[in-house]
Amino acid sequence: MPQKPAKRPPPSSHPRAEDGKERTPASGITAGAARDDEAVITALELPGAELTPAMQAYFDKCTEKLGFVPNVLKAYAFHMPKLEAFVAMYNDLMLAPSGLSKLEREMIAVAVSSHNRCYYCLVAHGAAVRSLADDPVLGELMVMNYRAARLDPRQRAMLDFAVKLTAQPAEIEEADRNALREAGFTDRDIWDIAAVAGFFNMSNRIASATDMRPNPAYHGQKRE
Amino acid sequence: MPQKPAKRPPPSSHPRAEDGKERTPASGITAGAARDDEAVITALELPGAELTPAMQAYFDKCTEKLGFVPNVLKAYAFHMPKLEAFVAMYNDLMLAPSGLSKLEREMIAVAVSSHNRCYYCLVAHGAAVRSLADDPVLGELMVMNYRAARLDPRQRAMLDFAVKLTAQPAEIEEADRNALREAGFTDRDIWDIAAVAGFFNMSNRIASATDMRPNPAYHGQKRE
Amino acid sequence: MPQKPAKRPPPSSHPRAEDGKERTPASGITAGAARDDEAVITALELPGAELTPAMQAYFDKCTEKLGFVPNVLKAYAFHMPKLEAFVAMYNDLMLAPSGLSKLEREMIAVAVSSHNRCYYCLVAHGAAVRSLADDPVLGELMVMNYRAARLDPRQRAMLDFAVKLTAQPAEIEEADRNALREAGFTDRDIWDIAAVAGFFNMSNRIASATDMRPNPAYHGQKRE
Amino acid sequence: MPQKPAKRPPPSSHPRAEDGKERTPASGITAGAARDDEAVITALELPGAELTPAMQAYFDKCTEKLGFVPNVLKAYAFHMPKLEAFVAMYNDLMLAPSGLSKLEREMIAVAVSSHNRCYYCLVAHGAAVRSLADDPVLGELMVMNYRAARLDPRQRAMLDFAVKLTAQPAEIEEADRNALREAGFTDRDIWDIAAVAGFFNMSNRIASATDMRPNPAYHGQKRE
Amino acid sequence: MPQKPAKRPPPSSHPRAEDGKERTPASGITAGAARDDEAVITALELPGAELTPAMQAYFDKCTEKLGFVPNVLKAYAFHMPKLEAFVAMYNDLMLAPSGLSKLEREMIAVAVSSHNRCYYCLVAHGAAVRSLADDPVLGELMVMNYRAARLDPRQRAMLDFAVKLTAQPAEIEEADRNALREAGFTDRDIWDIAAVAGFFNMSNRIASATDMRPNPAYHGQKRE
Amino acid sequence: MPQKPAKRPPPSSHPRAEDGKERTPASGITAGAARDDEAVITALELPGAELTPAMQAYFDKCTEKLGFVPNVLKAYAFHMPKLEAFVAMYNDLMLAPSGLSKLEREMIAVAVSSHNRCYYCLVAHGAAVRSLADDPVLGELMVMNYRAARLDPRQRAMLDFAVKLTAQPAEIEEADRNALREAGFTDRDIWDIAAVAGFFNMSNRIASATDMRPNPAYHGQKRE
Repeated sequence: MPQKPAKRPPPSSHPRAEDGKERTPASGITAGAARDDEAVITALELPGAELTPAMQAYFDKCTEKLGFVPNVLKAYAFHMPKLEAFVAMYNDLMLAPSGLSKLEREMIAVAVSSHNRCYYCLVAHGAAVRSLADDPVLGELMVMNYRAARLDPRQRAMLDFAVKLTAQPAEIEEADRNALREAGFTDRDIWDIAAVAGFFNMSNRIASATDMRPNPAYHGQKRE
Repeated sequence: MPQKPAKRPPPSSHPRAEDGKERTPASGITAGAARDDEAVITALELPGAELTPAMQAYFDKCTEKLGFVPNVLKAYAFHMPKLEAFVAMYNDLMLAPSGLSKLEREMIAVAVSSHNRCYYCLVAHGAAVRSLADDPVLGELMVMNYRAARLDPRQRAMLDFAVKLTAQPAEIEEADRNALREAGFTDRDIWDIAAVAGFFNMSNRIASATDMRPNPAYHGQKRE
Repeated sequence: MPQKPAKRPPPSSHPRAEDGKERTPASGITAGAARDDEAVITALELPGAELTPAMQAYFDKCTEKLGFVPNVLKAYAFHMPKLEAFVAMYNDLMLAPSGLSKLEREMIAVAVSSHNRCYYCLVAHGAAVRSLADDPVLGELMVMNYRAARLDPRQRAMLDFAVKLTAQPAEIEEADRNALREAGFTDRDIWDIAAVAGFFNMSNRIASATDMRPNPAYHGQKRE
Repeated sequence: MPQKPAKRPPPSSHPRAEDGKERTPASGITAGAARDDEAVITALELPGAELTPAMQAYFDKCTEKLGFVPNVLKAYAFHMPKLEAFVAMYNDLMLAPSGLSKLEREMIAVAVSSHNRCYYCLVAHGAAVRSLADDPVLGELMVMNYRAARLDPRQRAMLDFAVKLTAQPAEIEEADRNALREAGFTDRDIWDIAAVAGFFNMSNRIASATDMRPNPAYHGQKRE
Repeated sequence: MPQKPAKRPPPSSHPRAEDGKERTPASGITAGAARDDEAVITALELPGAELTPAMQAYFDKCTEKLGFVPNVLKAYAFHMPKLEAFVAMYNDLMLAPSGLSKLEREMIAVAVSSHNRCYYCLVAHGAAVRSLADDPVLGELMVMNYRAARLDPRQRAMLDFAVKLTAQPAEIEEADRNALREAGFTDRDIWDIAAVAGFFNMSNRIASATDMRPNPAYHGQKRE
Repeated sequence: MPQKPAKRPPPSSHPRAEDGKERTPASGITAGAARDDEAVITALELPGAELTPAMQAYFDKCTEKLGFVPNVLKAYAFHMPKLEAFVAMYNDLMLAPSGLSKLEREMIAVAVSSHNRCYYCLVAHGAAVRSLADDPVLGELMVMNYRAARLDPRQRAMLDFAVKLTAQPAEIEEADRNALREAGFTDRDIWDIAAVAGFFNMSNRIASATDMRPNPAYHGQKRE
């Protein structure tokens, strides 16, 4: 069955911003918003494509494990080659074996997304940090200012590299790589830090470019 | 193993790294108990002063209404004239009658604190936005990127002014004030927007300068 | 012909540039002043309030000691609680006993205001530095670029902290506080440096938001 | 046969920068550099993996069509899942059917890489622009300052969006998307512009993090 | 005790801070000056050259008209071709006939130097604005924040262009030039605005690079 | 014979951008551009002046040695005093004896112009670096990111100083000068580094302000 990933209500019922009317519901102050939050995923009108069997299975697995399909996947589902490439890269970077723990990779994701102020990624991956760390505060620290977190020197060096790479990529030099080596990272770990930071510099921009909205379920996850 | 970033050892055991003297706040790579979160409020060792009766009453009222005394008040409590001036200014700005609702003033507080990436203020006032709006999402939007929130034109103009005043104060001109007037704000409202934005530009810096830590109770407030 | 930039047409005639409507002078308590510079204090039209006896006494004392009431006080005088809170905080920070000299506190005020390019505060507090230092050049150095001044290491560390706190508050860490401790400052002094820097980050923004104009008398003070 | 993608000469012959010696040859002033430029692709020592048949075929096709395997592919070849995901995403974005011409996608690649000052991507994709446009100057303009190029309004709008998304992703809003729609782009085109800009924001950072060096052959391509 | 920031020990005794070696005064042509402020002009030790007759006449004319030789000229006097080229360019730009008044050219000089926070140029040219405008305040406004000055639209457009050209030269486009044309400037005037702004972007950097110190006489000029 | 330096076709045949038409041909995609590239040198219409004999001889020498007169000279040729002062300063800085080699001075020119993203200077001086170094790659490295070049410590220190002076002139201090001294530079060399960096901060801005276009011949120079 074809998904309807990034579908918006038809233009006639969702006039654009310049006419002064709200295109999507105001957040929360306006009643009745929750329904639309789930229907409208991006600001782009992209007709859904039919999921390939592999992607259908992947979506089913998301629903089984998380209770929902993350909106970023629905947003990509207008074109199977893009969805499959995104899923392949994401799964390799964030879930495959690495010298970085899954939590560490999510910490990089959130610290990078905080620098870029990406709403979608901060909500979705902030929840991941809270859950993987079993710590309702660590995710907030990554979202707000990773420098305020009490990190061990390894994790601090990891995030300093990831955030400098985000903010000033042209100024990364051998001294920065050596700071990671001195903190105990291998050259393969350095690749992985760079690759995760790079991936979220891409994803942050696609989410911001399309006004991607996170699944509401993330907000309440692991708050206590 | 996940970090427990907001935990620090008890004050009596953590030495000052450089000179061997005891310091209250140390950085928490060392394991410690959750109760330290409430014992260590800033990185500065400032002996507490005796509360004046007015301030004692104010602290009692906080405990009664919130269940705790906000850490910013404890941080200022080493010197009564500073605490009293802070409380007087805060109460006038955030609680006294104004053309801005209390929620709007808290939205300014959080949008400004997000620009400045102030951990203390984002935690404490993010909770205030969630509670006053009765909306678990609006506070997150203010923390992460107010531009992603679906705001009415009045609130958007208000936050645009507050954030420009934070980021580029020297570039505020009559056109910026007129944008507020066109959005329906009076000249008195403009003062109030500027004063709240200015106040949090002050508070953000005092919190960052002293590594002020928020009361843990804020994190779970109004998440559903 | 040279501009006379700080002169405006008399209140009765000055039109609002954009909409052609008349504007009457801000801060009505100063009506009847002979020169426009003294009649128009801010870009906001805020009817003056009756001074409380304490504030009247304070204004009288200003006139007696300085020969005039600083315009920032007149700007706040539309609402007594705001004026009183501002005066209480200002007097505690800038005039009460501290490990920082009054000159040092004014140097922080000007270095912060220079970063923020706040015309009001640079004029008023630049004059204060010149007078307190009995040095017509030191105020200029603080206004223009504090790094060009020949400062002792203590004062240089103090201003480096204050300006970093102004420019990059989220990047202040224990190493920055330790640089102050190594320069001889106590933890209480660190609070005071942060509090003065924070206060002027607030005041700069209120002055810029309202286009506050300094009393002309400051310009010629202590120039030789 | 296992590739040796990111291999460096053994440490004993290429001492790191901190000992004061050149790790790799100085560019051109020193004779004999060209040989090493091809042997050393990144600053990371990552043992090559055996190419999968699909990747071996892809490398063979590169050699046949370009005369060489682009170094970015060799850099990724230490781990087949990463190489395959990168190739799948790259080929979909840059070569598959799209409302954007291949030249336009390369122009985005270079304008983004110019903002990020990524040496590898500017060399490799600058050559692609020169070749696809059959214009030795257009690539230089994209490398140096796309604003100086005489572009039609459509291409100018495309690059303005891509560069704003690179520089200030959090400030992209509906007005930016509407500027693209007004320039004639469909919502699918907007996705593609964002996806190409996002992809190079990732690749620029992986190249900078690893000091990736471009194949020397690019420099002379299509210069007349 | 107040700092005397612009005073240094006499040449014979002032040690180089780092290595303890003696430094002799810069610009040896000024030997024998009574006060250190006048003896030490830059942080560089450059033996003075013999003035050519033309330059000697120029220095004599400065002394006659200003009462002193501006320190920038003494700083350049170690090499006659540099001094002569600087003087020729300065005199053409700042004193020769132009569609811009001399005051307007000095206003550009100070607004640019304010952006670059150049102590030497702000002191010397701030005095020039005060004198040419016969207005003790206009110079201060240019030094502190030209946006706070009440300028006519022509002068505001002129300074907006000069400061954008200083801050973001790569973003100047035809629309910026057209804003000047609409404010009444000819194409020749646009050249002159750009040339004066460019010249001070050069001079600011030479002054900052060498820690050039202004003649003390400037500070008191035209303060009432 | 009067030169026609910055002459444009009459306005009627080259309508301005706001009417939506291309004023000059699009780069390369549009056929027939090369002819106009040589006719239109800047966006300003400035009638040519008669060359003085010295300048005519200089232009003749350029034609003899380079095969063309660099467009920057034609752009200045509307006014002989400006052209002569520019030529005198340029020749002293870039060609006269100095502790810096001509190649080093051109490397500074390009690294500064890269920071400022100046199309004219990057094209013209990038070609100079390629030619003087007899290295088709070094010029590209200076244009794209000098930090990626394998430079000896002396040249790296030289460019670090020049680029910091360009980006943050107010933050240059004695420590920066001492870094140059430690890399082997004399105080006179420091002046020359600053003067070349300063000169290109001026020239970059004049070129950007006037949309100066480089001679097409530069693009192909020394590419192999």
